[in-house]
Amino acid sequence: MIIILKHNPRDGDVETLLGSIKARGLVAQPIANEGSNMFGLAGDLTGISEDDFLRNPAVDKIVRVKEAYKLAGRKFHPEDSVFDICGRKVGGGNFAVIAGPCSVESEDQILSVARDVKSAGAQFLRGGAFKPRTSPYAFTGLGLDGLELLKLARDKTGLPIVTEIMSAEHLSEFEADVDVIQIGARNMQNFTLLRQVGALKKPVLLKRGLSSTLDELLLAAEHVMAGGAREIMLCERGIRTFETATRNTLDLSAVPVLKQRSHLPVIIDPSHATGYWNLVEPMALAAAACGADGLIIEVHNHPEAALCDGAQSVTPQVFRRIMTRVNRVREAVAQ
Amino acid sequence: MIIILKHNPRDGDVETLLGSIKARGLVAQPIANEGSNMFGLAGDLTGISEDDFLRNPAVDKIVRVKEAYKLAGRKFHPEDSVFDICGRKVGGGNFAVIAGPCSVESEDQILSVARDVKSAGAQFLRGGAFKPRTSPYAFTGLGLDGLELLKLARDKTGLPIVTEIMSAEHLSEFEADVDVIQIGARNMQNFTLLRQVGALKKPVLLKRGLSSTLDELLLAAEHVMAGGAREIMLCERGIRTFETATRNTLDLSAVPVLKQRSHLPVIIDPSHATGYWNLVEPMALAAAACGADGLIIEVHNHPEAALCDGAQSVTPQVFRRIMTRVNRVREAVAQ
Amino acid sequence: MIIILKHNPRDGDVETLLGSIKARGLVAQPIANEGSNMFGLAGDLTGISEDDFLRNPAVDKIVRVKEAYKLAGRKFHPEDSVFDICGRKVGGGNFAVIAGPCSVESEDQILSVARDVKSAGAQFLRGGAFKPRTSPYAFTGLGLDGLELLKLARDKTGLPIVTEIMSAEHLSEFEADVDVIQIGARNMQNFTLLRQVGALKKPVLLKRGLSSTLDELLLAAEHVMAGGAREIMLCERGIRTFETATRNTLDLSAVPVLKQRSHLPVIIDPSHATGYWNLVEPMALAAAACGADGLIIEVHNHPEAALCDGAQSVTPQVFRRIMTRVNRVREAVAQ
Amino acid sequence: MIIILKHNPRDGDVETLLGSIKARGLVAQPIANEGSNMFGLAGDLTGISEDDFLRNPAVDKIVRVKEAYKLAGRKFHPEDSVFDICGRKVGGGNFAVIAGPCSVESEDQILSVARDVKSAGAQFLRGGAFKPRTSPYAFTGLGLDGLELLKLARDKTGLPIVTEIMSAEHLSEFEADVDVIQIGARNMQNFTLLRQVGALKKPVLLKRGLSSTLDELLLAAEHVMAGGAREIMLCERGIRTFETATRNTLDLSAVPVLKQRSHLPVIIDPSHATGYWNLVEPMALAAAACGADGLIIEVHNHPEAALCDGAQSVTPQVFRRIMTRVNRVREAVAQ
Repeated sequence: MIIILKHNPRDGDVETLLGSIKARGLVAQPIANEGSNMFGLAGDLTGISEDDFLRNPAVDKIVRVKEAYKLAGRKFHPEDSVFDICGRKVGGGNFAVIAGPCSVESEDQILSVARDVKSAGAQFLRGGAFKPRTSPYAFTGLGLDGLELLKLARDKTGLPIVTEIMSAEHLSEFEADVDVIQIGARNMQNFTLLRQVGALKKPVLLKRGLSSTLDELLLAAEHVMAGGAREIMLCERGIRTFETATRNTLDLSAVPVLKQRSHLPVIIDPSHATGYWNLVEPMALAAAACGADGLIIEVHNHPEAALCDGAQSVTPQVFRRIMTRVNRVREAVAQ
Repeated sequence: MIIILKHNPRDGDVETLLGSIKARGLVAQPIANEGSNMFGLAGDLTGISEDDFLRNPAVDKIVRVKEAYKLAGRKFHPEDSVFDICGRKVGGGNFAVIAGPCSVESEDQILSVARDVKSAGAQFLRGGAFKPRTSPYAFTGLGLDGLELLKLARDKTGLPIVTEIMSAEHLSEFEADVDVIQIGARNMQNFTLLRQVGALKKPVLLKRGLSSTLDELLLAAEHVMAGGAREIMLCERGIRTFETATRNTLDLSAVPVLKQRSHLPVIIDPSHATGYWNLVEPMALAAAACGADGLIIEVHNHPEAALCDGAQSVTPQVFRRIMTRVNRVREAVAQ
Repeated sequence: MIIILKHNPRDGDVETLLGSIKARGLVAQPIANEGSNMFGLAGDLTGISEDDFLRNPAVDKIVRVKEAYKLAGRKFHPEDSVFDICGRKVGGGNFAVIAGPCSVESEDQILSVARDVKSAGAQFLRGGAFKPRTSPYAFTGLGLDGLELLKLARDKTGLPIVTEIMSAEHLSEFEADVDVIQIGARNMQNFTLLRQVGALKKPVLLKRGLSSTLDELLLAAEHVMAGGAREIMLCERGIRTFETATRNTLDLSAVPVLKQRSHLPVIIDPSHATGYWNLVEPMALAAAACGADGLIIEVHNHPEAALCDGAQSVTPQVFRRIMTRVNRVREAVAQ
Repeated sequence: MIIILKHNPRDGDVETLLGSIKARGLVAQPIANEGSNMFGLAGDLTGISEDDFLRNPAVDKIVRVKEAYKLAGRKFHPEDSVFDICGRKVGGGNFAVIAGPCSVESEDQILSVARDVKSAGAQFLRGGAFKPRTSPYAFTGLGLDGLELLKLARDKTGLPIVTEIMSAEHLSEFEADVDVIQIGARNMQNFTLLRQVGALKKPVLLKRGLSSTLDELLLAAEHVMAGGAREIMLCERGIRTFETATRNTLDLSAVPVLKQRSHLPVIIDPSHATGYWNLVEPMALAAAACGADGLIIEVHNHPEAALCDGAQSVTPQVFRRIMTRVNRVREAVAQ
C-alpha cells in the first residue's frame, strides 16, 4: 500500500499520519517522486484498508499494491480449481450447464423440465424454491415444498440440484438436501449469509451483485471461503447500467478478467443478464467462445404461463439447439 | 397496465396472450393507436408484473400505469407521515439529525461522541455494532458488546439509538434494545430480512441500495410495511456511478422525487455518499435546502484513529458548525 | 404515442393539454384503463417528442409506441443491408475485419502493419491521422501527413482505409481520400458533423458514444442517413459503467439487439472496449459467436513503443491467431 | 507517475519497460514495497499517459501522482478566478444567474422572457439558436436568425447573451455577437471545437458530458484554455446513471470537488439535470447551499407550447420565486 501526500502538507498532519501508521504495527518507508512525498507501508496489511488513512488532511491518495483476496485469488493457487460435484467436474476446461425453471411451480412442471434439460445435455437442474421479488405482492416461490419437488426431480433424473438460499433459517435444509447452494445477486454482500453458507462447506454458486465490481465479487467469494467452503462458482449475470434495451448489461469481459485474477470457475447467466429469451442463445454462444466454464439458463416447458421470469425463459426445444451450438463453439475454441 | 403489440403479430401469439391474460383473471380492453394494437388490462393487478406477459412474441412493450407500492405511496396517504420516536418528531416539516461514529469502538469513544453530538443538537445517536465489510479480514464491529455500549450511551444522554441489523439471528436483541433499526444499503433487497424487521413494528431507517432505483427503494419500504411496520425513514446515501472523485454519487433529486411519490420522510447521508469528511458539510447544507427531513452524519472524536470510515467522519467541532449552518439554511427555506 | 394522465388532474390542465395536442395537428383519442385516463395520439408524429407534453401538470407519463428512426430501422427495410465497399462485402452474413494501429506514426510503421494485417486476412486498414485525446498535451496524430501515409499503405496493399474525422474542416480531404469515414464515440452526438459526413454519401463507421443507448446510436445513424449516406456500420466499443477492471464495459448484447431493430451491420471493437490487449482475443471470439458482422482491432508492430493505445494493441502475431480462431468460431455458428 | 510491476515479472519485459521509459527521456527510480517492485518516473511528464506503459506484460498498474491539467487546476492558481463579463462579476463569491428559454422561438417570446428574467434578477440571458437534437426530425433552432433575436433582446434589456455553438462554421458570428459561448454536453470532447472556441479568447460556459468524470471536464477546460481563453465557467448538468426518475442525475458533489481542484467558477443547471420543472427549484436551492457560483435555468413564458424542453422550463413567476429563495439561502450560508 502506498500513501501519496498532498503538495505542501502541514507538518502536524504528517506526524499524525506517521503515528497512525505506527499504531497499526506498520512501517512507513519514504518514497520521493515528482516532488511529491509518498510512503510505502510495510508489515501485515491484512485487515488494513485505504480508509484507515484517507481521513488525514495530508493524504492525497492511497494505492493498494496487492489485492485483498487470498483464498479466491490466483496468486497462491495458480492452477484452475476443478471441483467434483456429484460426479460432475466443474472448472479446468470442463463445461457445466445448469438449466431449469426460474421457480419450481408443480411436480409436473419440474419433472418435465428436468427430463428435457437432461436429455439436451444439462448436468445440473436449477429451480427456485425461495424467490426474491422486488414487489412484496409477487409470487415468492413454493418454499420448502419447492425443495421437496426439486429432490423428487433429482431422484427421477439423477441431476444434482442448484437452488437459491434467501435466509439463514433454511441452512439445515439446504445443507441436507441441496447440491449447489446459490447466493443471489441481491445477497452478494449479505456478509452474514456468506459466512453461514461458507461454513456448510458445500458447493456454492455466487452471483455477482447488480453494481458490484469484479474485485467485490472476489471479496464476496473470499467471505464464503473464509467460512470454510472451497467449491465456489462465480456467476456473471449482468450489471446495472444506463442501457434499458436489456434487463441488465452482460459483462462478458468478466470471464477473462476473473480467470486472470482467480482460480475459480466462471459461469454465465444469459437469461437474467438479457431478460429476453431470444437474446439467450447469442449470449450463450458468446460466453462459450470467450472461455466461460459454464452456463446457467432458465428453461420452462410453457414459458408464457411461467409464474416468474417467463420473458427470459427458453423452451426445451430452444435449449436443445443452444446446447448443440454451444458445443460446436466450444470445439472451435478448443482447437 | 398497457400491453403494446408488435407490428404484424402472428394470430396464434395474440390468442395465447389473450388466454394468458384471462387465466390471471384479468380483462383485456383493445386500444388502437398509430396503427399499432394495444390492450389495457382491467382487474386486480396486485401481484401482476410486466414480466408475466413480456415473453409472448406478439408483445413489443408493456407499460405500468400505476406504481406497485400502496402502503409507501402518497396516493392513498396524501399527507406526510409524522412519527413520534421516543419523543422526537420525524417527518412533516420536522428535521431529524442522527449522528455518531461508524462503529462503536469503546465506552469512552461512544460516550464522548454521544455527549458531543447531543450538545450540538443531534436528536438520535448512531453507531455500528455489526458492520458489513467488503473484506472478510476487516473489523466487523463489537457485536452484542457494541449494542450494550449503545444502550449505556442512551442511558447517559437520553438519545435514542439507531444501529444496523445484519442478520435475523439478532432480531430479538434489536426488538428489545434498539430504537430505530437500520437496514443497510447492501441488504436493501434482502427481502427476508425486510419482512422480519417489518414484523417487529419498530421504526426503521431503510438505506437505498447502491444501484437501486427510487421505485425499488419504495418497493423495499413496501416489503417492510407489508411486514407490519409503519415508521420508515427512507435514506439516500449515494448511488454507484462511473464517477470516482467521490465514494458514491449523492442523488439529491431523490429528495423531491421521493416526497412526490411517498409520504415517508427522507433522510440524507452525506458521509457515505461522498466518502470524504470535507464534502459532508456542503452536501448537508444542500440536503437541508432541497427539503430533506433529516441527516445522518458520521462523527468521531478522533477520526484518524477510527476503526472504520475515518475518512468520511467529521470531528465534533465540525459537526457543531454543520448543525449551526444547516439550521440557518432550514430557516432560509422555511420562509 | 400514449399520454397517461395523473390521478385526478385539474380540468384546466387537461384542457390545456388537449389544446397543445390539437395545435400540433394531432388528434387525441381517449383511452380508459385501471381508472386512469389516457390519450392515444393520432396524426403525423414525426418530429413530436415526449418532451412536448411532459410539462403539463396533468401528465403522468408518456409512452412512445413507435421508434423515432425510419431509415436506420428494420421496419421499412426488413432485409439486412449489404454494402460493397471497394469490392469488400459488408453485412448480410459477410464478416468485415478492420485492423491497424491506433495512430499512423511513420511510413515504416503503417506499411509494416498494413502488410501484416492483410496477410492475416484483414479486409480494411484502420489508422488514426487525427486523434481525439483527453489531455491537450498528448500526441494528436500526424494530421494530413498521416492521411498521406494511409493512402500510401492503400496503394501498396490494396486495403481500403478507415480513419476518423474530427472536424468539418477536413471534409473535402476525407471525401477524396478515405474509403470509410469513422465518426468516433466522442462525436456520436456532434449532430452537425453527422449531417455533414452523411452528405458525402460515403461509407461510415459510426461508433457508439460512451453513455449512449442503442436507440440513441440508431438515431445518430438516422442523422447520418438523413444527410444522404446509406452505408453505415454501427460500432459497439464499450460503454462507461462503474466497473474499472476494463477500460469500458463491452456490451455484446448490443449485437442481437441492434440487429433486431436495424438492418445495418454491427461491428465490434474489442480493443477500445477492454483496453487490454490480452482481452481482445476472447472478446473477438465472443463477438463472432453472437453474430457480429465484423471486428475492428488495433494492431501495432511494436505496441510498447506505440504513441497511443499501446496497452490495447495486439501484435501482428496475436492478430493472426485471433483471425484463425475467429474463423473457426464463425464456421461453428454458421452450421 | 508510479509503475507497479506484477509479481515475478519476466526479466526481458522489465528491460523493455526500462528502455521505453528511457526512450521518453524519463528516469525510472526503483521503489520497493510489500515485496512488489515499482518505479517512480522522474522528468517531464507532460504528454505522458498511463497508457504509454500499460501494455508491457510486466506492468500491473500505474498511478498518476499529479493531475494532468495545469491551467485549469488550483495548484498553480490558488485563488478563485473572478471574471468580469460585460460588467458582471463571475466567481470568487459572486453568484451568476443565467436564464432564458431552451430555444429562441420568436421576437415576442425572447423579448418577453428576457424582460421577465431581468426583472427577477438574472444577469445573463440564455437561449438556443442552434439546438442539438437526438432525433434528426426534431426542431433544431432558428440558426442565425435566432442569434439576431438574441442580439435584439440584449439591446432591449442590456443582458449579455449565452448561447451554444454547434459547429466551427459559426465561429466568426459567435466571436462577433455572443458574450458567453456555450459548449454543450455532447460536444465536451469535441476537441477540435474546444480548441477553436478557446482561440477566440472569449468567455466560455463548458458543460460536463453525460458520462464525463470531473477530471475529464477539467481536461476539456484545459483544451479550451490551451487555445487561449481564460474565462471558463464549468457547468454540471447531470450525469447519466441507471436512475430514470429524473432525466439525468444531478451530481452536486461536483461543486465542492471542482472547487477543490480548480480555480474556475462552477455553475449548476438544474433544468437539464432533472428534466422536470418542479424539481428545478429544490435543486437550485441545494446548489446555492453547497457553494455553486451560479445557476443556468430554463425559463419560458409559455412552457406548454415550448418548441423544446418544455417539461423542464419554469414560468417567469416560478423563476422569480426561485430567485428570492436562492438569495435567502445564499445569505444563510454566507454568514
